[in-house]
Amino acid sequence: MFANILDNVKITTPLVHSITNYVTVNDCANIVLACGGSPIMADEIDEVEEITAICGALIINIGTLNRRTIAAMIKAGEKANALGKPVILDPVGAGASALRTNTVFQLLDKIKFAVIRGNISEIKTIGAGNGNVQGVDAGAADRVTEENLKESIVFAKALAKKTGAVIAITGAIDIVADAKSAYIIRNGHPLMGKITGTGCMLSCVAGAFCAANPNALLDAAACAVAAMGLCGELAYKKTEETKGGSATLRMHLIDVMGKIDEQLLKVGGKIEKL
Amino acid sequence: MFANILDNVKITTPLVHSITNYVTVNDCANIVLACGGSPIMADEIDEVEEITAICGALIINIGTLNRRTIAAMIKAGEKANALGKPVILDPVGAGASALRTNTVFQLLDKIKFAVIRGNISEIKTIGAGNGNVQGVDAGAADRVTEENLKESIVFAKALAKKTGAVIAITGAIDIVADAKSAYIIRNGHPLMGKITGTGCMLSCVAGAFCAANPNALLDAAACAVAAMGLCGELAYKKTEETKGGSATLRMHLIDVMGKIDEQLLKVGGKIEKL
Amino acid sequence: MFANILDNVKITTPLVHSITNYVTVNDCANIVLACGGSPIMADEIDEVEEITAICGALIINIGTLNRRTIAAMIKAGEKANALGKPVILDPVGAGASALRTNTVFQLLDKIKFAVIRGNISEIKTIGAGNGNVQGVDAGAADRVTEENLKESIVFAKALAKKTGAVIAITGAIDIVADAKSAYIIRNGHPLMGKITGTGCMLSCVAGAFCAANPNALLDAAACAVAAMGLCGELAYKKTEETKGGSATLRMHLIDVMGKIDEQLLKVGGKIEKL
Repeated sequence: MFANILDNVKITTPLVHSITNYVTVNDCANIVLACGGSPIMADEIDEVEEITAICGALIINIGTLNRRTIAAMIKAGEKANALGKPVILDPVGAGASALRTNTVFQLLDKIKFAVIRGNISEIKTIGAGNGNVQGVDAGAADRVTEENLKESIVFAKALAKKTGAVIAITGAIDIVADAKSAYIIRNGHPLMGKITGTGCMLSCVAGAFCAANPNALLDAAACAVAAMGLCGELAYKKTEETKGGSATLRMHLIDVMGKIDEQLLKVGGKIEKL
Repeated sequence: MFANILDNVKITTPLVHSITNYVTVNDCANIVLACGGSPIMADEIDEVEEITAICGALIINIGTLNRRTIAAMIKAGEKANALGKPVILDPVGAGASALRTNTVFQLLDKIKFAVIRGNISEIKTIGAGNGNVQGVDAGAADRVTEENLKESIVFAKALAKKTGAVIAITGAIDIVADAKSAYIIRNGHPLMGKITGTGCMLSCVAGAFCAANPNALLDAAACAVAAMGLCGELAYKKTEETKGGSATLRMHLIDVMGKIDEQLLKVGGKIEKL
Repeated sequence: MFANILDNVKITTPLVHSITNYVTVNDCANIVLACGGSPIMADEIDEVEEITAICGALIINIGTLNRRTIAAMIKAGEKANALGKPVILDPVGAGASALRTNTVFQLLDKIKFAVIRGNISEIKTIGAGNGNVQGVDAGAADRVTEENLKESIVFAKALAKKTGAVIAITGAIDIVADAKSAYIIRNGHPLMGKITGTGCMLSCVAGAFCAANPNALLDAAACAVAAMGLCGELAYKKTEETKGGSATLRMHLIDVMGKIDEQLLKVGGKIEKL
């Protein structure tokens, strides 16, 4: 389904620029390397335009935003837009503070995003200002379930239309949508919720995939989401073998990302396109 | 001994806000998840009050302090005090520079702490201004031993009385004391000293335990100290099986924190109450 | 070959001060502990001089530099020079942005370095302003090969003479040179390129080795380079046993650093001195 997506990453080794939080940044860099990209982190306003200019994509993650880095995010995003490079937004904790919510709206106002990836509460905050945010995790009341899936897809498509971005809502069930189509992905494992940064890592992988496939953003984002979920499943199997826990899972998750190929995704992907 | 402490964490999944260093922050987030809490890191002065307000506890760790984050620490701590939420202080490297020592005294002046956790040199710096600090590790001359244990307990209780905080001095022998009582804990393994951040992680776990047990701060802090030490022992056993080293130990440490329960603590805890 | 180098680290447990990036800082701290040193990270201008003063070496790594930390790097470096302590420069991404390139030249202007360690593109940027930099990785056109080895050594020696620093160029073939002699080291494994931070970690290990051997900087740096490469090989063997990937390799790499001794290096080192 996503054959060229993965091949293009392998062939081009895309450089990706992340302005991201200091909590999960190391895992982000390592998973970008594992998936076939090359990561560079730079958040000083004096250099972000130049760094973005040599990269194939920019990821903006507001996980530990501050005044200094917000200014750098905007400058880098505007540069990426001017050069036609895909920009990915990870609105970590949008809704949890006025600063986060306002920053997301400021970013949306100034930058055109290729992909916006968040949990349902963060995306609802963007869509309607009413996400049931609890810190950086999705509120239970918001969760995408088989019962509300249909309306969640309608919501995702509408937000994609409004923003011009592919909307990736990740959780137990993932939705990746543009204005016209949506992928529903059911890969993943609950223990992934016990590792910090699976969302941040996914946004960076999506950045690498978009950099290598700039004309197939919906497929690139969906492929990243499916790959990450499948990595979680395969990593969980390895974790079980040694009776490990969350830290063991994290290690295997990055390991497995280095091995994901078309064949693995064909066999293990639980992907539907509507 | 600490049955409800652990259960309360599992039941309430406390959100904990950390303003902490960028060296060990990822491990801190992952161990908070492992122990049953939900971590959020935020250090921008524009949002720390709001983030603290939605959390059950605040951890202030000065490991890589700077002018910007010091101001945020104070603001967040004052807000937590105003809302009656427990604040944990981890005075990393107090005594190693005037900035660290002065910042700790400034924090103590403005914020009432629920728990202060450090190595003996850091706590001595707080208590008497004479810690034998060597970088971020305890000085050999300061160490708590069986020989000086009695006077160390007297010191801890006196400092607890003076500050109104539970004092947790961790090392080969741990002391956790309020003005009246003290726990002596002999769990742990020397290889833990070869991992950066075991102290930082413990402070965050203590934060999660205090958030879930705001009316039993001494027991919550002592339970966190015992759990961390026991995790070190159990993780060391797993590390030995594969002839691993410090990085393997770190992985198992976080894994094991996800499995600690009343039964494990009952069997493995080396805990005395005086 | 390097017997005293390793012994001196074990005997003195050197404190090393790093002003470094937030991407790989945790791995840096853990590998310094593994190799026998004691790490401290501090980047606030108000304290860097004091921290450097209590340490045996200073590492300056520009991986995620910003205006605030650049000023701290200069102040700390000048202090280390004044006290005669070795300073190691890791010019991450020099050539990738004007800020990085200019900062490196500003640092070289104000600080005398004991060791400069980078990939060939970064070192060429320093030497001649014409490195073929691609983000933070070496450009393919620059790579040290058996074919261009001779001229690469000449280049390294000339740069060592010009800067007064030991020059460590790391890649598939490593060159460690002062103005008169050069070590050629062929340890390492290609999978190391799939982990972020092997260079940063090496610079910190070199810092610890120089701190413990201030009168043998060339040998200390070469020993660090050989030890890191050998760790990569031994870690790869362990990784293969469990069919692991890059994250497993990273864990074993740090583990193995805790076990490197004279005997292992004698058997496994692929070291030539010219």
